[in-house]
Amino acid sequence: MKSMDVVTFGESMVLFTPARMLPLAYENQYYRQMAGAESNVAIGVSRLGHSVGWFSKLGRDPFGEFIYKSIQGEGIDVSRCTYSEEAPTGLFFKEKRSSGDVRIYYYRRHSAASMLQPEDLDEDYILRAKYLHITGITPALSKSCRETVYAAIEIAGSNGVTIVFDPNLRLKLWHEDEARRVLSDIAQKSHIILPGMDEGMFLTGEHTREAIATKLTKGGKTVIMKLGKEGAFYQNEDENGVVPGFLVQEVVDPVGAGDGFSAGILSGLLRDEPLPKVVRRANAIGALVVGVNGDSEGLPKIEEVEQFMSRSSSTQDVSR
Amino acid sequence: MKSMDVVTFGESMVLFTPARMLPLAYENQYYRQMAGAESNVAIGVSRLGHSVGWFSKLGRDPFGEFIYKSIQGEGIDVSRCTYSEEAPTGLFFKEKRSSGDVRIYYYRRHSAASMLQPEDLDEDYILRAKYLHITGITPALSKSCRETVYAAIEIAGSNGVTIVFDPNLRLKLWHEDEARRVLSDIAQKSHIILPGMDEGMFLTGEHTREAIATKLTKGGKTVIMKLGKEGAFYQNEDENGVVPGFLVQEVVDPVGAGDGFSAGILSGLLRDEPLPKVVRRANAIGALVVGVNGDSEGLPKIEEVEQFMSRSSSTQDVSR
Amino acid sequence: MKSMDVVTFGESMVLFTPARMLPLAYENQYYRQMAGAESNVAIGVSRLGHSVGWFSKLGRDPFGEFIYKSIQGEGIDVSRCTYSEEAPTGLFFKEKRSSGDVRIYYYRRHSAASMLQPEDLDEDYILRAKYLHITGITPALSKSCRETVYAAIEIAGSNGVTIVFDPNLRLKLWHEDEARRVLSDIAQKSHIILPGMDEGMFLTGEHTREAIATKLTKGGKTVIMKLGKEGAFYQNEDENGVVPGFLVQEVVDPVGAGDGFSAGILSGLLRDEPLPKVVRRANAIGALVVGVNGDSEGLPKIEEVEQFMSRSSSTQDVSR
Amino acid sequence: MKSMDVVTFGESMVLFTPARMLPLAYENQYYRQMAGAESNVAIGVSRLGHSVGWFSKLGRDPFGEFIYKSIQGEGIDVSRCTYSEEAPTGLFFKEKRSSGDVRIYYYRRHSAASMLQPEDLDEDYILRAKYLHITGITPALSKSCRETVYAAIEIAGSNGVTIVFDPNLRLKLWHEDEARRVLSDIAQKSHIILPGMDEGMFLTGEHTREAIATKLTKGGKTVIMKLGKEGAFYQNEDENGVVPGFLVQEVVDPVGAGDGFSAGILSGLLRDEPLPKVVRRANAIGALVVGVNGDSEGLPKIEEVEQFMSRSSSTQDVSR
Amino acid sequence: MKSMDVVTFGESMVLFTPARMLPLAYENQYYRQMAGAESNVAIGVSRLGHSVGWFSKLGRDPFGEFIYKSIQGEGIDVSRCTYSEEAPTGLFFKEKRSSGDVRIYYYRRHSAASMLQPEDLDEDYILRAKYLHITGITPALSKSCRETVYAAIEIAGSNGVTIVFDPNLRLKLWHEDEARRVLSDIAQKSHIILPGMDEGMFLTGEHTREAIATKLTKGGKTVIMKLGKEGAFYQNEDENGVVPGFLVQEVVDPVGAGDGFSAGILSGLLRDEPLPKVVRRANAIGALVVGVNGDSEGLPKIEEVEQFMSRSSSTQDVSR
Amino acid sequence: MKSMDVVTFGESMVLFTPARMLPLAYENQYYRQMAGAESNVAIGVSRLGHSVGWFSKLGRDPFGEFIYKSIQGEGIDVSRCTYSEEAPTGLFFKEKRSSGDVRIYYYRRHSAASMLQPEDLDEDYILRAKYLHITGITPALSKSCRETVYAAIEIAGSNGVTIVFDPNLRLKLWHEDEARRVLSDIAQKSHIILPGMDEGMFLTGEHTREAIATKLTKGGKTVIMKLGKEGAFYQNEDENGVVPGFLVQEVVDPVGAGDGFSAGILSGLLRDEPLPKVVRRANAIGALVVGVNGDSEGLPKIEEVEQFMSRSSSTQDVSR
Repeated sequence: MKSMDVVTFGESMVLFTPARMLPLAYENQYYRQMAGAESNVAIGVSRLGHSVGWFSKLGRDPFGEFIYKSIQGEGIDVSRCTYSEEAPTGLFFKEKRSSGDVRIYYYRRHSAASMLQPEDLDEDYILRAKYLHITGITPALSKSCRETVYAAIEIAGSNGVTIVFDPNLRLKLWHEDEARRVLSDIAQKSHIILPGMDEGMFLTGEHTREAIATKLTKGGKTVIMKLGKEGAFYQNEDENGVVPGFLVQEVVDPVGAGDGFSAGILSGLLRDEPLPKVVRRANAIGALVVGVNGDSEGLPKIEEVEQFMSRSSSTQDVSR
Repeated sequence: MKSMDVVTFGESMVLFTPARMLPLAYENQYYRQMAGAESNVAIGVSRLGHSVGWFSKLGRDPFGEFIYKSIQGEGIDVSRCTYSEEAPTGLFFKEKRSSGDVRIYYYRRHSAASMLQPEDLDEDYILRAKYLHITGITPALSKSCRETVYAAIEIAGSNGVTIVFDPNLRLKLWHEDEARRVLSDIAQKSHIILPGMDEGMFLTGEHTREAIATKLTKGGKTVIMKLGKEGAFYQNEDENGVVPGFLVQEVVDPVGAGDGFSAGILSGLLRDEPLPKVVRRANAIGALVVGVNGDSEGLPKIEEVEQFMSRSSSTQDVSR
Repeated sequence: MKSMDVVTFGESMVLFTPARMLPLAYENQYYRQMAGAESNVAIGVSRLGHSVGWFSKLGRDPFGEFIYKSIQGEGIDVSRCTYSEEAPTGLFFKEKRSSGDVRIYYYRRHSAASMLQPEDLDEDYILRAKYLHITGITPALSKSCRETVYAAIEIAGSNGVTIVFDPNLRLKLWHEDEARRVLSDIAQKSHIILPGMDEGMFLTGEHTREAIATKLTKGGKTVIMKLGKEGAFYQNEDENGVVPGFLVQEVVDPVGAGDGFSAGILSGLLRDEPLPKVVRRANAIGALVVGVNGDSEGLPKIEEVEQFMSRSSSTQDVSR
Repeated sequence: MKSMDVVTFGESMVLFTPARMLPLAYENQYYRQMAGAESNVAIGVSRLGHSVGWFSKLGRDPFGEFIYKSIQGEGIDVSRCTYSEEAPTGLFFKEKRSSGDVRIYYYRRHSAASMLQPEDLDEDYILRAKYLHITGITPALSKSCRETVYAAIEIAGSNGVTIVFDPNLRLKLWHEDEARRVLSDIAQKSHIILPGMDEGMFLTGEHTREAIATKLTKGGKTVIMKLGKEGAFYQNEDENGVVPGFLVQEVVDPVGAGDGFSAGILSGLLRDEPLPKVVRRANAIGALVVGVNGDSEGLPKIEEVEQFMSRSSSTQDVSR
Repeated sequence: MKSMDVVTFGESMVLFTPARMLPLAYENQYYRQMAGAESNVAIGVSRLGHSVGWFSKLGRDPFGEFIYKSIQGEGIDVSRCTYSEEAPTGLFFKEKRSSGDVRIYYYRRHSAASMLQPEDLDEDYILRAKYLHITGITPALSKSCRETVYAAIEIAGSNGVTIVFDPNLRLKLWHEDEARRVLSDIAQKSHIILPGMDEGMFLTGEHTREAIATKLTKGGKTVIMKLGKEGAFYQNEDENGVVPGFLVQEVVDPVGAGDGFSAGILSGLLRDEPLPKVVRRANAIGALVVGVNGDSEGLPKIEEVEQFMSRSSSTQDVSR
Repeated sequence: MKSMDVVTFGESMVLFTPARMLPLAYENQYYRQMAGAESNVAIGVSRLGHSVGWFSKLGRDPFGEFIYKSIQGEGIDVSRCTYSEEAPTGLFFKEKRSSGDVRIYYYRRHSAASMLQPEDLDEDYILRAKYLHITGITPALSKSCRETVYAAIEIAGSNGVTIVFDPNLRLKLWHEDEARRVLSDIAQKSHIILPGMDEGMFLTGEHTREAIATKLTKGGKTVIMKLGKEGAFYQNEDENGVVPGFLVQEVVDPVGAGDGFSAGILSGLLRDEPLPKVVRRANAIGALVVGVNGDSEGLPKIEEVEQFMSRSSSTQDVSR
């Protein structure tokens, strides 16, 4: 059986945006797009030249079909998607009142993806991967989703698949205490952790990069922490440091930058590069993503990243 | 306290239709409308010049706000709407592949309206009504919805409010056996029943108008049965007969004709007209509604119905 | 008969905006909205929790129907609207060439609303109101409109209804001299006057807040003058002062802020609050309105205003 | 000075159509087009290879600019357009409820074109024309418009310019009696009259082709009467006959066929062809126009007409 | 190396359609879709459950990217696509004046796909296929395209890959004589030929099914000839017969039916079914495709075909 | 024969822009506009009150028709346009990822306009012009286009028509060396040269205004060099100087400013004004054009320029 560079899983949803910048109560025309943190990462990794598998549980409806085709269209293996005969594909609406006042309305609870359960996992599929990518969104969706995450970690962890974990804290989806407990636990079982500074504080209770990293890296882990415009901080048993970010001319759409960053980290690790170089490319991808509308539309191909890095001086970090 | 001609309640949803006649998996632009059998009836009754109250349980979201304003905008009392803090306003997507191949995708299960419960009823409000209008959709939505229907019937029935019941059979929402049991039971507790021919057969097991009507009218009820193009058949203890329908030039959109028919019946009853005249106006409204796109957009004002009836010879019924 | 908190009247029109920011001569796609200073105020007052009646003279056409439903949809009493059998509902087009170059093209002269006449007034209706709200737009529309304004003032003034007057100077609609004469006269007959600084200068010929206010408040009136970012100045026989405005992060659309301010004043007066508190809330509403596209779409509910005020420090006024 | 084949004048308006087939009260998106009987004829004549001049009085607004450019873009001389500094360019909305239920809402009264007056006529310009084309719409617009029509007829008639008159009866615009009186009078002063069968009956009170024609041709005139699918009937002192119409596969949009017919007649007369041939081409153009959406979009070039006629057998007339 | 069921190649283009049914000269809004006979077949075969490879030469532009992703999204192997650094992805515009008057405007000459050349072929890839599918469009595109078709036939023919050929005659793209010569020659080198009746006549000069088939099947070939509503006729050395088509309720869009038919034939052959059964399913797919808008959007999954066939009586053929 | 103020020629194309600011690979809705440097200049000159002729070679397709009508609609003589029976009207797509990242995708190579050849020139037509305007785009399109430019220069130069040349360097269309050679040669044959500072450096190898101008003005020419915000520098045998630009409040769309500048120069020369005044008006037009979306939509009428100049103090140049 063919090996695969990265396997990831989690809910991708259909996103509806109003045609105009108006309160949704007054708007009657909408555009459809696709959104999902894990599929963003999968798309990013695929564009950087690696083989990726992504799966979720989809509804048997046209929106499930749309998501399936959109992700497969990016060259990602979607063969392990399962289907719910009962629940529909999740969706959400984005209301933009002003550039700083964006509101989200979910039709996600009881979605097909929230029905994901350990039985949906193909053990052999995970074992074929070099990296298993997991986010903190999935365990927040439902009890069976959480069990699925743990089951995947169990499979990967006990068989030499490296687990990369992005906490992606969403306090709208679960209670703070439960979130802290579960995410800390998953971090503990992962090999590489990719928190933002805020998430690092949330998980550890510490307030400095070094203190956060020291707690999270316990047990031989690697932590790479996003610092916004400043860049990113990395630390493991052997080394630590800050890699400054790239200057961004115009932030068109900040969404998806963190996912692009994760894709960049995975790509660098797959290339066996030294950590500072890995992080620098991840910073570059974050900077590129914010210059384009859409969650995944701006994820660059490997040539575009290299070109951008050779052109830019990395004095400022934008990867968020 | 002011009396009210009609009170009705039930779920109104947001309806999204694709900009083009394409399978939804391939369409990325959508228009928003409003849909709901009970609010259609309420709008119809209001345009015919009567006072109406409608309520549902809405989500605290822009779509709940949209529905509330749309129905209030028709001059309907919406003051008894309640809100769910948890569940969103229901919505659905309509896929039109050809004029005969229309498919519906619901985001309705677990909606705010499905949380409707007997506690949401304002007993005094119902008692102020001359007619309580109920459909067979509401009891199919959830257990608490069914209990709410029964509670409303209880309030109305024991206090002299006339109960008008449209079975509106939706086999997608519940099992056939349960549907038959519950709808028959509600029919039994109602005063006026407005089934289609198919629904009449479903409820009684009989196959002729007279046989169906004889079963349904037991206990002094009135049955008015829609016969499609042929018109409608009415029967009670005192009289029965067929009122032929009106000729329709072009069926633009058949949805909503049954609701228009119900509105016409209620209006005629409120005017204390003889049954054949009541049914004739209901037929006319059904014929008018199918000539306009949208579920409620084509519901006529009283002047328009009268004008249409005086212009038309009623040789063919279109009320469906 | 039920009393009402506020009654207002005046022309609401249909507004068409181009789909793109292009000179209209080159644009072939348009969106429809609703616009009108008095209905904005009515919507604002209704959202703040009070009972309001609004009326105008509408055309017997789909745009009159659209306006009627839109305003009724906000919970406003529209029962006193009258109809012109001859003249159409007014409309206008907005051309936005750049953020600072916006041009308006009216189809308003000879509109139904310009046919409004004293006979359209329901005296009892006005007498049921605590406040009568009037703008300086209506007397500019036609001779019969002006007479209607005077007739309404006469009814209200001689029966203890407090008259609140917003000059809303529109020099495109009438000659400067006539405008000054009529608006001064109406101000003279009003109890509370809500001019902008420019309008205050126009009406009095004075150039300082105090001088303007001193002239306008003669005879026991209250003046509340909008000062743009600085906030607002209030003065009556007993007190005067400046209430600073709220800091606005991003001005999305300045239109409607003045109407929101008026709604805030009316709401505060209805709550019997001290003037500085009344003005502070009005400032807050103005600040909220400019953060949302549309004339009335951004008018807040009372909870939203209170929340905003408790969150914000009022160091800068934006109510214009 | 250069001579011109045809001169015509009359109001062209901006037409707004809803994006969907919905009652306008419920539609918020509109497309803009141009419409006008006289400009349709001018466009038709221009495409058939002749020189044409058209004029109207336009508003000083973007819609006047749009109309001016659209007509000039067809190669028509628009140099004699005048402008109103007060009144706007006329516009109207088309509501299509079903294919047989189309409703029109005008913003035309008091439009710039209705201000057209004899002083706007350039006598030399009219005298340069071989044919002056006039419709019965213009005299219905206002008193000054009617005077302008009479003044133009006076100029043309007394100087050897042939007057072609299309009654274009619009009973929405004026009273039946006045319409009959004025149109009969204009017909009397014209040389060639192009009524429909209904208009012929309206003007003469007669009920057969021959009787109508005999009355209208008095004084040496030519009458060419449109008979719908059957074709057209022509009569003058020397000859008369019916020219059958062309078979139409699919009537996409009937509007504009009569104007195309008029353009065809003018073109044939300019080519000095025998009447039956003139009428046959006019029939062909009518048949082509109804196969295309839009009032003037389907008007053919001369090559297209010739091709169509050589391909078709003229067994049925569609020019309406 | 993995074997593949079907390999096909040829130009897929971007298709732009106007938002309204208007002559393109007057339309300013367009929608984008994808179109291509060979990719239609590939999509059809993939939905029926087989493995397919498709390739073309694409431009290095967003439209090439769009086509690549769209086809990959259907689960088709696109790994053998090559790119032109010079020429753009082909595109075309569709003008629909009426249902019977559709006009096409190509931007296809000198497109990237027309640069396809024998060097772009991966010999091993073709040899892995069970069936090579070829259309008569590709050899019409350019000299190098024709050479590529011949080279692919050479590879497949001499190595046991079955060649299925759909003539797809396009007289707009090349001269009749050359088309007849080349297509006859390719038919001669193919194993299974899928002409329409017209194409059969064009290629053989014969006028009856049997005579056409007898000429085309020379040398042990199989011919399956589409007969429109009547169904299809098949013939080889061992058997022949007509398989009647399925009744179609409403032809929404006839384009793509022939490609669906080809996909059905390939699927049946891959399932080793007897010819009449193979043809019957192909007929069914053709009937399903015409009921949906778009070239490939209506191609059914295998379950949908089986369901449709078990529901329908095949009395009438619509596969075209 | 009538004389004409300016004659110009060159390719105008159809421009498609996406409905949203998205990478084109993800956008399926497009708007159509018109674009072309020479037609922009023609439109600009026409709006300033002069007679202009423009021509190109168009495709026999609806886009050619659209361009023809659009330019004729501006009052420009288009009678010398020729048609290609083979090649289509050129078009291009504009992708805007962010305000600073705009990408262009051409369908222009092998377009109808690229087939323009010396035989398409009407010698008498050029000789009737006072000014022949030429850009450096046309010679870059094809060999025959270059020959056409030279032939036009030959006609004009040897007969007293003043040649105005805007280098409009487009390095995407040809090689740098060839561009420098040909453009320098054309500049040498022209009378008035309108380069930007960059183009001046490219053509002369010099780096200061004076040095560039000294080289370019050799042989009695006039050079007017655009300096961006600073304004423009002019020089001829008699005089030289800088005319400062106008302050621009908001740059909405910078495209077309250079063409507006050229139109302004031509208009000033036609008015026989002194050079500083000529340049000042050209600066003003550039400043007006950048404040409006579209290439030609913002070109002002003469009254608008005069008004703008009298209102503005020219302290800063924006003409680019």
